Amino acid sequence: MAQHGPRLVVPIDVTKKPREQKLPLHNRWHPNIPPVAEVRVGEVFRVEMVDFSGGGITKEYTADDIKYSDQSVVHYLSGPIRVVDEDGPAKPGDLLAVEICNLGPLPGDEWGFTAIFDRENGGGFLTDHFPCATKAIWYFEGIYAYSPHIPGVRFPGLTHPGIIGTAPSMELLNIWNERERELEENGLKSLKLCEVLHSRPLANLPSTKGCVLGKIPEGSPEWEKIANEAARTIPGRENGGNCDIKNLSRGSKIYLPVFVEGANFSTGDMHFSQGDGEVSFCGAIEMSGFLELKCEIIRGGMKEYLTPMGPTRLHVNPIFEIGPVEPRFSEWLVFEGISVDESGRQHYLDASVAYKRAVLNAIDYLSKFGYSKEQVYLLLSCCPCEGRISGIVDAPNAVATLAIPTAIFDQDICPKPNKVPIGPRVVRNPDIPRCTYDGNLPITKNASATLT
Amino acid sequence: MAQHGPRLVVPIDVTKKPREQKLPLHNRWHPNIPPVAEVRVGEVFRVEMVDFSGGGITKEYTADDIKYSDQSVVHYLSGPIRVVDEDGPAKPGDLLAVEICNLGPLPGDEWGFTAIFDRENGGGFLTDHFPCATKAIWYFEGIYAYSPHIPGVRFPGLTHPGIIGTAPSMELLNIWNERERELEENGLKSLKLCEVLHSRPLANLPSTKGCVLGKIPEGSPEWEKIANEAARTIPGRENGGNCDIKNLSRGSKIYLPVFVEGANFSTGDMHFSQGDGEVSFCGAIEMSGFLELKCEIIRGGMKEYLTPMGPTRLHVNPIFEIGPVEPRFSEWLVFEGISVDESGRQHYLDASVAYKRAVLNAIDYLSKFGYSKEQVYLLLSCCPCEGRISGIVDAPNAVATLAIPTAIFDQDICPKPNKVPIGPRVVRNPDIPRCTYDGNLPITKNASATLT
Amino acid sequence: MAQHGPRLVVPIDVTKKPREQKLPLHNRWHPNIPPVAEVRVGEVFRVEMVDFSGGGITKEYTADDIKYSDQSVVHYLSGPIRVVDEDGPAKPGDLLAVEICNLGPLPGDEWGFTAIFDRENGGGFLTDHFPCATKAIWYFEGIYAYSPHIPGVRFPGLTHPGIIGTAPSMELLNIWNERERELEENGLKSLKLCEVLHSRPLANLPSTKGCVLGKIPEGSPEWEKIANEAARTIPGRENGGNCDIKNLSRGSKIYLPVFVEGANFSTGDMHFSQGDGEVSFCGAIEMSGFLELKCEIIRGGMKEYLTPMGPTRLHVNPIFEIGPVEPRFSEWLVFEGISVDESGRQHYLDASVAYKRAVLNAIDYLSKFGYSKEQVYLLLSCCPCEGRISGIVDAPNAVATLAIPTAIFDQDICPKPNKVPIGPRVVRNPDIPRCTYDGNLPITKNASATLT
Amino acid sequence: MAQHGPRLVVPIDVTKKPREQKLPLHNRWHPNIPPVAEVRVGEVFRVEMVDFSGGGITKEYTADDIKYSDQSVVHYLSGPIRVVDEDGPAKPGDLLAVEICNLGPLPGDEWGFTAIFDRENGGGFLTDHFPCATKAIWYFEGIYAYSPHIPGVRFPGLTHPGIIGTAPSMELLNIWNERERELEENGLKSLKLCEVLHSRPLANLPSTKGCVLGKIPEGSPEWEKIANEAARTIPGRENGGNCDIKNLSRGSKIYLPVFVEGANFSTGDMHFSQGDGEVSFCGAIEMSGFLELKCEIIRGGMKEYLTPMGPTRLHVNPIFEIGPVEPRFSEWLVFEGISVDESGRQHYLDASVAYKRAVLNAIDYLSKFGYSKEQVYLLLSCCPCEGRISGIVDAPNAVATLAIPTAIFDQDICPKPNKVPIGPRVVRNPDIPRCTYDGNLPITKNASATLT
Repeated sequence: MAQHGPRLVVPIDVTKKPREQKLPLHNRWHPNIPPVAEVRVGEVFRVEMVDFSGGGITKEYTADDIKYSDQSVVHYLSGPIRVVDEDGPAKPGDLLAVEICNLGPLPGDEWGFTAIFDRENGGGFLTDHFPCATKAIWYFEGIYAYSPHIPGVRFPGLTHPGIIGTAPSMELLNIWNERERELEENGLKSLKLCEVLHSRPLANLPSTKGCVLGKIPEGSPEWEKIANEAARTIPGRENGGNCDIKNLSRGSKIYLPVFVEGANFSTGDMHFSQGDGEVSFCGAIEMSGFLELKCEIIRGGMKEYLTPMGPTRLHVNPIFEIGPVEPRFSEWLVFEGISVDESGRQHYLDASVAYKRAVLNAIDYLSKFGYSKEQVYLLLSCCPCEGRISGIVDAPNAVATLAIPTAIFDQDICPKPNKVPIGPRVVRNPDIPRCTYDGNLPITKNASATLT
Repeated sequence: MAQHGPRLVVPIDVTKKPREQKLPLHNRWHPNIPPVAEVRVGEVFRVEMVDFSGGGITKEYTADDIKYSDQSVVHYLSGPIRVVDEDGPAKPGDLLAVEICNLGPLPGDEWGFTAIFDRENGGGFLTDHFPCATKAIWYFEGIYAYSPHIPGVRFPGLTHPGIIGTAPSMELLNIWNERERELEENGLKSLKLCEVLHSRPLANLPSTKGCVLGKIPEGSPEWEKIANEAARTIPGRENGGNCDIKNLSRGSKIYLPVFVEGANFSTGDMHFSQGDGEVSFCGAIEMSGFLELKCEIIRGGMKEYLTPMGPTRLHVNPIFEIGPVEPRFSEWLVFEGISVDESGRQHYLDASVAYKRAVLNAIDYLSKFGYSKEQVYLLLSCCPCEGRISGIVDAPNAVATLAIPTAIFDQDICPKPNKVPIGPRVVRNPDIPRCTYDGNLPITKNASATLT
Repeated sequence: MAQHGPRLVVPIDVTKKPREQKLPLHNRWHPNIPPVAEVRVGEVFRVEMVDFSGGGITKEYTADDIKYSDQSVVHYLSGPIRVVDEDGPAKPGDLLAVEICNLGPLPGDEWGFTAIFDRENGGGFLTDHFPCATKAIWYFEGIYAYSPHIPGVRFPGLTHPGIIGTAPSMELLNIWNERERELEENGLKSLKLCEVLHSRPLANLPSTKGCVLGKIPEGSPEWEKIANEAARTIPGRENGGNCDIKNLSRGSKIYLPVFVEGANFSTGDMHFSQGDGEVSFCGAIEMSGFLELKCEIIRGGMKEYLTPMGPTRLHVNPIFEIGPVEPRFSEWLVFEGISVDESGRQHYLDASVAYKRAVLNAIDYLSKFGYSKEQVYLLLSCCPCEGRISGIVDAPNAVATLAIPTAIFDQDICPKPNKVPIGPRVVRNPDIPRCTYDGNLPITKNASATLT
Repeated sequence: MAQHGPRLVVPIDVTKKPREQKLPLHNRWHPNIPPVAEVRVGEVFRVEMVDFSGGGITKEYTADDIKYSDQSVVHYLSGPIRVVDEDGPAKPGDLLAVEICNLGPLPGDEWGFTAIFDRENGGGFLTDHFPCATKAIWYFEGIYAYSPHIPGVRFPGLTHPGIIGTAPSMELLNIWNERERELEENGLKSLKLCEVLHSRPLANLPSTKGCVLGKIPEGSPEWEKIANEAARTIPGRENGGNCDIKNLSRGSKIYLPVFVEGANFSTGDMHFSQGDGEVSFCGAIEMSGFLELKCEIIRGGMKEYLTPMGPTRLHVNPIFEIGPVEPRFSEWLVFEGISVDESGRQHYLDASVAYKRAVLNAIDYLSKFGYSKEQVYLLLSCCPCEGRISGIVDAPNAVATLAIPTAIFDQDICPKPNKVPIGPRVVRNPDIPRCTYDGNLPITKNASATLT
């Protein structure tokens, strides 16, 4: 009997390490990483993937694996995958349309984690407030996730790949390396914004440490050359990459620019769920998983559909379509932030500062319902909350909002004329595992918190 | 027969000028502006309002009224309204819950406008790209708006007041004036962000020009004193104010901090519809309108529910609840931006830059379907599009997205394997009325646009 | 200044009686009732209407007005309205597309009622269980309705006109009268279904009693002739009419067949909200109101789009489009019924019997939460619940379901491992006003209710 | 490494026949069928299932397998499954809450079928119009289904089990057998409804033919006894069973009454998608599949939550909760039917007749867009369309509606002022495979179809 269903093109065995998988993984962007599989337009195929850390982070009740995690190996990606149609491989200048037909955790591995990195080893959006490494484990019950470390919440996942992108051309890669080096070398002085965000480092330039390049034998001259050029996978860029768009779930379509023959797209960093912004950085519910995909090549589509915005015709961004199939919530509690920082200083139309304040407001509010602030920080990183740029023109204040679906809580979290809270409080024991912060960077204190 | 329905507490006659209304309006925030009406908790009452410009902008086919508009008079607000319950007026430290039971345009005045201010007189988010004043008129057919100046789109409005806020105390007003003055005096040097956003001025400090203070007689000594202290209404601040949160429509609830006895809240700047960010600044569909409201006082609610974030206990922000009644769209086309500016320069986790790029990408894309770029800029300012902070941690790139509901167009705007577009193109004549730009500031050119 | 907004074509003064309105109303369908207004395609116009009873039912705390209500006068309709385009009036064979741009209660008259008719004077779907007349008054707070008689619920209305229809031709009118007379004369014997539904009478044939015919002078020979032929407005028929489709709210479009020159459509019976089925008969939240409409004529559209289903080409039904703007609920509690009646008797794929059981199940369930059964019966008639035909083929049981949005209650109504209910019970005092049942028809008893 | 994820309690091998599965299946309801598995409350477990026909219907391009299908073997169910908590097994009088955590097709078997049974061998809702056996094959691309036999449509599945139910007690089984025998023996005379619906037979009484009873050895005396008593699985009944509620998808919860110790629930008849009513009878997209479930026992819940409606305390129906995760469509085209049959005869408030007419109206309408009527009949059976009881009180006409989400079509199917259709027509070749009808029953002709 003929089988129906997606063809498995990248298999993963989660009991094995990243370097032991049947098809080699990679964790850098470079045009010379050879494809590991080929697919035809129209066919539905299955790509499996390890979690972004390749199993480096465990489900043990400890945050030590987070505190000392190896940032040089992220993110292990599956691919590259070469795409062909009846006219041959995709060509530079084409658009590659990738439809997400289905996706989910790998069978037998239905769990994930959300973490706060140590301030000296990764940090996050609020690292100046929360410098200590912590972690929460989530277990999946079909579409739902719950965590013994953050009791009282359960929500359906809007599961998506954090990373999907095509291979860059050498020209594009050079643009990336140049602009990010410029930032790392001159950034602190010119961009005062960094005083506020406190996330470090500024950029992650190519490094051979931790570098994995698929079929390229480690240590070979070719490997050395590529490893010194290849871009890290942390930021989203012109090729898509680590976009962390939480709505790219079942039924979505991604239009990726093609920079090299075959398109050579890769994917990974599967998230069971994520909030807009992924604020704690290791902030989605990170997991291993699978994608069932279908591709289409739009010949000449870059010129047809994408207007470059920058000095070259490579300065483009992908386009996305979001479909009708996602969890819908009808009631939201919304927190607002304006671009005034914690010290009271006025910033000019800065949506990042405004969003930081909105998130801080939400954390303090929810902590009144029986949670520790770290629990809420983790929760807002991974639950299906929406981060909006509400006003970006009313000088000097940008207004950003964070909307939280109220149905994910087992208590009523809306303000009431009576005292907080009406119902039974969440018992915060056991809390999340956490480490000490051993560094010397100053912690942002909220002056108002000590006022009485 | 007893009447049922909301009690009219602030009437408006749109055939009269702002200063001729039965109850006086105001366009500044100050604790000493006396209330014009009093309401009790639980009662449903009706507040009518002029458009933000007080009729200064007309439905004539010209953009001259935009180019030379008087920025000193915005925004004409209805109120202040004093709120009492059985224990007396609201007190500082309380929370005022305001439910929006209903709202809409004023009968007989069912039209609105969206405009781009001249770069020298207001500007907007993309003012360095689009420095010329333009305007589009919208007509309402019940819940729908259409514009003869932007053919091929029609959409239901998510109508909301751009401004709702409580009166500040003197202490809070002083904080505002101090921090905004500091920005205006020192901002250009320290905040390089301004190089990118190009919106000016940095802040709008108190000024007697154009000042309207309700029941305070113009020119009196009291008026002089207050006019020199009172805050402009342009930015959203701790009291709510110009939040421009597009989802604050029917069924929403706003929890405003109370800073003065009676709460003394004001509202205005009604928007038939607005996109997240209100990018062209005069960017919503601006109109006159009415609100039907119901209030509740949560005694001691500021301490109970709001954690100040900043040096004083006044550094708080309102909270919002969004209800089940808003237009829902099931399919969205999403544009992405990263924090690399038009010159190719890398910025560090800057959501404003990323959102600017997402909007620019969307404008160029949609212009392929038969629109001028100015038409799309206006459309994205006022249609129910969503602006999201998707990634704020993946250094160095913030990722922002702009999601556009595809159903508002009468043509299919998604990418297709065939040429753009499949269906009949929108005829762009008549285009929008527009003025020349007579200033000397440099226009941002997109280098790629001239590549062939 | 030119006015914008809908042109008022049928004004209503709710302080006046139906026969005293400026433009005469009518409560029968007949081709010879002359139009009272004319509209052009494309223009937005406003039609106001009395409640279906023309003010016969009051907001007093009594059900006497229900018990003794005059069934012969329902429903007072506004119209007929003649529709023309540049080629002249609509013609038989055309389709008339009517878009509902906006609608709502009349200003100053924001209240409504839901009632159970006495079994001898109207009855309802469950009249054999609930024979007594009762009534609940609802007050509107913008989009929301609440009733002092059914505490603990508040919900947004999906407001719609219960009746919208075109004038029938004489040929169609004759078909109606013939088939309904046949039913009334021979129905009880052949349709055993009536044993179960117990609603009476079977049909309402033309009668001069209570007849109102618009511009036709009462008592004139023409009036006598028409009154003896004109169809009652109670059932929905080929011309649309009393369809009671609860989703025909803002943004909907109705495609009505045209049977007479000008289309001559009428509308009335405004409902603030209604549940699928309108089970208590006087079951929506009945009110006066207004519609803002826009028409289009599809020339020859009946032949083009509608296939007659029956012996003549007049046996057609309208088509509807439902738009994106309605209250959305994300969680529903669903009750099921199968086609076995209260006596335990098996019926064959009878969706009416199955739905009756589903409604009875829901009533008994919700009565556990502190309500009387009559309160629930009224609530399920008027709240936005959905009645579905889930299975119509699995002989011998039809399966029907009734889905209730849980968010309309201020308590959690879902089953829980602990006793019912978890939270505070609704206090059922004051209950609804009710009358005695003075008739002799047998009451259906639920045998199980007395088992212990 | 410990596994996470659901425990597999009922495995299926689709390459094997129903009687060859590792755990035996069953296709009758009887209290004495022994459980094949036991689960504890709180654990997530996986149940796999064959399609309802056990592989009897193939993906070949023929409808012969439909025409001659063996109706005596349906439906092959997985189970019974015994449920226990810390107090032991579920007891009669408890409620069993079953949450659907996840579900889908079996990997490698991602296809399904929709069919019209021959009028002499199963029939369907419109069997008097469409007596010939036909079939369409559907292929799944993740959440989407498409069929080469019904081109131009593609839609996300609202996947659900058609059947889930608990084992009946002997007392309940006797009630079923008695009332269904009464119908079969006396039904044709008393229920004239059958004249209209034309589905046959009236009921399916117990029969040894095709009977499969799980662990009970076929042919043993026990088997003989049970087979002669056991109820067929075709109708939904008090135990749940074949409810065919299309919204019972991911995140739903089912509250089933418990009639025997352990609850002993069974499930099967997986549907990739179904329209309300499942009108063609073999009308869902039938497939093999899996469920991931979690149970809870509400002790004494039947008395606490369910009010019997009938002569005994066993006359109850399950309750359902529907969650936030299902495909949402924002635009619907709605067809209406009233209770006047195809001959023009008036029926009294008969929702089945009204729904029949609504479906017939929809079929004729959509056939104008390039489909054969049989294609539309199949489509409306299996796509996510909604069947509503809109009005059930406006004597003599019940009003039923069928709402079709317009987004499932690749062409615009709404009425337009221009001719039908605007865009490219669907090419109807290849059409569906179909058989001849060889019986003698009269075909319902639509008299109007031949009028010119």
